[in-house]
Amino acid sequence: MAKINNNYHKLQNNYLFREIAKRTKAFLETHPDVKIYKLGIGDTTEPLPKIVIDGLHRGVEKLAEDKTYTGYGDEQGNSSLREALAEWYKNQGISLSTQEIFISDGAKPDSANIQSIFSPDSAIAVQDPVYPVYVDTNVIAGRTGKFVNGRYRKLIYMSCTKENNFFPTLPEGNVDLIYICSPNNPTGTVATKRQLQTFVDYAREHKAIIIFDAAYSMFIEDKKLPRSIFEIEGAKECAIEISSFSKWAGFTGVRLGWSVIPMDLVAEDTRRGEINALWNRRQTTMFNGASNIAQEGGLAVLRTQGQKACQKIIDYYMKNAWIIRDGLERLGLEVFGGENAPYIWLKTPNGLTSWEFFDKLLAEAYVVGTPGSGFGPHGEGYFRLSAFGRREDITKAIKSIEKSLEL
Amino acid sequence: MAKINNNYHKLQNNYLFREIAKRTKAFLETHPDVKIYKLGIGDTTEPLPKIVIDGLHRGVEKLAEDKTYTGYGDEQGNSSLREALAEWYKNQGISLSTQEIFISDGAKPDSANIQSIFSPDSAIAVQDPVYPVYVDTNVIAGRTGKFVNGRYRKLIYMSCTKENNFFPTLPEGNVDLIYICSPNNPTGTVATKRQLQTFVDYAREHKAIIIFDAAYSMFIEDKKLPRSIFEIEGAKECAIEISSFSKWAGFTGVRLGWSVIPMDLVAEDTRRGEINALWNRRQTTMFNGASNIAQEGGLAVLRTQGQKACQKIIDYYMKNAWIIRDGLERLGLEVFGGENAPYIWLKTPNGLTSWEFFDKLLAEAYVVGTPGSGFGPHGEGYFRLSAFGRREDITKAIKSIEKSLEL
Repeated sequence: MAKINNNYHKLQNNYLFREIAKRTKAFLETHPDVKIYKLGIGDTTEPLPKIVIDGLHRGVEKLAEDKTYTGYGDEQGNSSLREALAEWYKNQGISLSTQEIFISDGAKPDSANIQSIFSPDSAIAVQDPVYPVYVDTNVIAGRTGKFVNGRYRKLIYMSCTKENNFFPTLPEGNVDLIYICSPNNPTGTVATKRQLQTFVDYAREHKAIIIFDAAYSMFIEDKKLPRSIFEIEGAKECAIEISSFSKWAGFTGVRLGWSVIPMDLVAEDTRRGEINALWNRRQTTMFNGASNIAQEGGLAVLRTQGQKACQKIIDYYMKNAWIIRDGLERLGLEVFGGENAPYIWLKTPNGLTSWEFFDKLLAEAYVVGTPGSGFGPHGEGYFRLSAFGRREDITKAIKSIEKSLEL
Repeated sequence: MAKINNNYHKLQNNYLFREIAKRTKAFLETHPDVKIYKLGIGDTTEPLPKIVIDGLHRGVEKLAEDKTYTGYGDEQGNSSLREALAEWYKNQGISLSTQEIFISDGAKPDSANIQSIFSPDSAIAVQDPVYPVYVDTNVIAGRTGKFVNGRYRKLIYMSCTKENNFFPTLPEGNVDLIYICSPNNPTGTVATKRQLQTFVDYAREHKAIIIFDAAYSMFIEDKKLPRSIFEIEGAKECAIEISSFSKWAGFTGVRLGWSVIPMDLVAEDTRRGEINALWNRRQTTMFNGASNIAQEGGLAVLRTQGQKACQKIIDYYMKNAWIIRDGLERLGLEVFGGENAPYIWLKTPNGLTSWEFFDKLLAEAYVVGTPGSGFGPHGEGYFRLSAFGRREDITKAIKSIEKSLEL
């Protein structure tokens, strides 16, 4: 008699985006003539540059000819793309072998699956507020216990608020896996080298492993801020890096990412290279490689001209971020993030809850954002706006806020 | 202190294809002038038809323009593709709603991940010989126990040999999840409606769930044989179907597949629709959709002209299968499969083990195949040849076998 995995019952229903859609719909029903501005979702909107489009077309064209057709690629990714990424890291002063780089269909699946190679008893620490995938996948794996009073009992919440500049202090007690996202989704803040060094030192001392989500690293303009955890001394012994072409190159729909599992990485019960081999076994067993077309596109992104073209689109989104920040600050709102990151995180005014501010922003300015409380207990009283969008929409949205939001 | 998932230690190292490569390499070192014919791997070799290439190019072109650019698609797949698949099923007399169809990046990931929504205590039955992914993913999930004397202690092996026409009898004792692959990899045999009906009846009676892998269904030419488990009465209450564009349309590298989770499907502890919702939760949490380019290609495959063009390529591989079967039979070998399926399964002659026959075939005919024992205990004494390959290579390989194999 088949039964289901009961851990699914512990998951909190993903009310966040459903609730946003529901309230937006209800508002539109009573205000049918209103134009809504959506600054809620972190999805790319700008078309791909020609050099990348050409790369993708080349990927398709190869499938049309006898001599260039390819079937299954390596589950770890095509060697040319792994080599190009190793070269890309090298240009940032980080030395990695191709064996340490695993191509995937994106940072979300990798950050979801990475926990599966570790013990079911692992103690998990996450930043709070947090990208929900880190939490939900550990709930499903049975590591978090039940959800009581707004928290999973066995999950370690590392609070990130304006009081600590949105970077956590070291966790107390035993921790095995530590998820860190920088530039952070949702707070839009970036960890400094010094901040990351404290976590790397802690992880090495306690044989904990840092799962570092660098999906937004290309939005870092400030050269002093680290784009990779491997800029931190000792990180190869204690950290996995997960990254993506999604936000960097507009590949949210194309699907291409990668993870770095250093050979030097060890857990308490492994020797050198064993975790790398474990992930290799996981991927060869459960994954069949990223699309060969997407991988050709990735190669085009990594060419000098491709990187330049993608940088222009990042600059476009970052100009959006500046417009949002500038507008909100002129209104006197307390604003964080939006520099070196495509998310703007604001403190709700007048002690409003995140959802109260959502309703107010929708009713008065016709702007939809994301309530911070949807990302975890310490997101309460905050609100996320996304810089991903067409310039004209962003500009109109901010004008509407400036004109109509009653503070 | 981080520790690893110990179940990985229970996995048998994937010696099969590594051992094949090792023995082939060793042979080539002592016979440097020999041309080897590879009939070992089930990978597509024929370029894609123009209509499908055009579809893929269209998918790329959409990403180049403001108005057609798309970022994240639905994790469940684009509605147009889900609708086209529902229509495709309808033309086969099977009624499914789009909500019951989930687009993925292939049958391997789906058949690997599907177990995760069920109880960790589930009793698992597999056909033996078996596609290794079903076994390994349940080993990793901790359901199989240790590997002792060539078998996992808690796994239920349903033997498939020439004595039962390569279709198992019903399992004894409690079974929760039953994996069935038809057309079968590796045996190349196809389950009849009557055979599947016995399993559907059993599953309904015992509230077991059948995981039906139909990745090779488009190779079925005989109209009396079922291409889908849903041709069987009552299957919607007890079966999940996993399928793919990989072998049908040469998408092994493009990556596109789908799974059907009927609303009527129930486990012991679920109500109607709950397993469908569970898989939806799994996919929205851990997956971010198949590539939008691949999905455009899938749409092209499903058009009438696309299906016709793909059928021609299937006919090409099936002609290969006929050439292999015919050659081996003329030599007096006992041959199975290769009709309605792209794999030829042969009984090794003179009581040779699978590996002994591998060595003999390589040494005498320069042909590399796959030892049946690599697929499970009841594969011993059998051998798999694949019909995926260029015609000239297949023809030369069979001529070489006919000329040189000493029986």
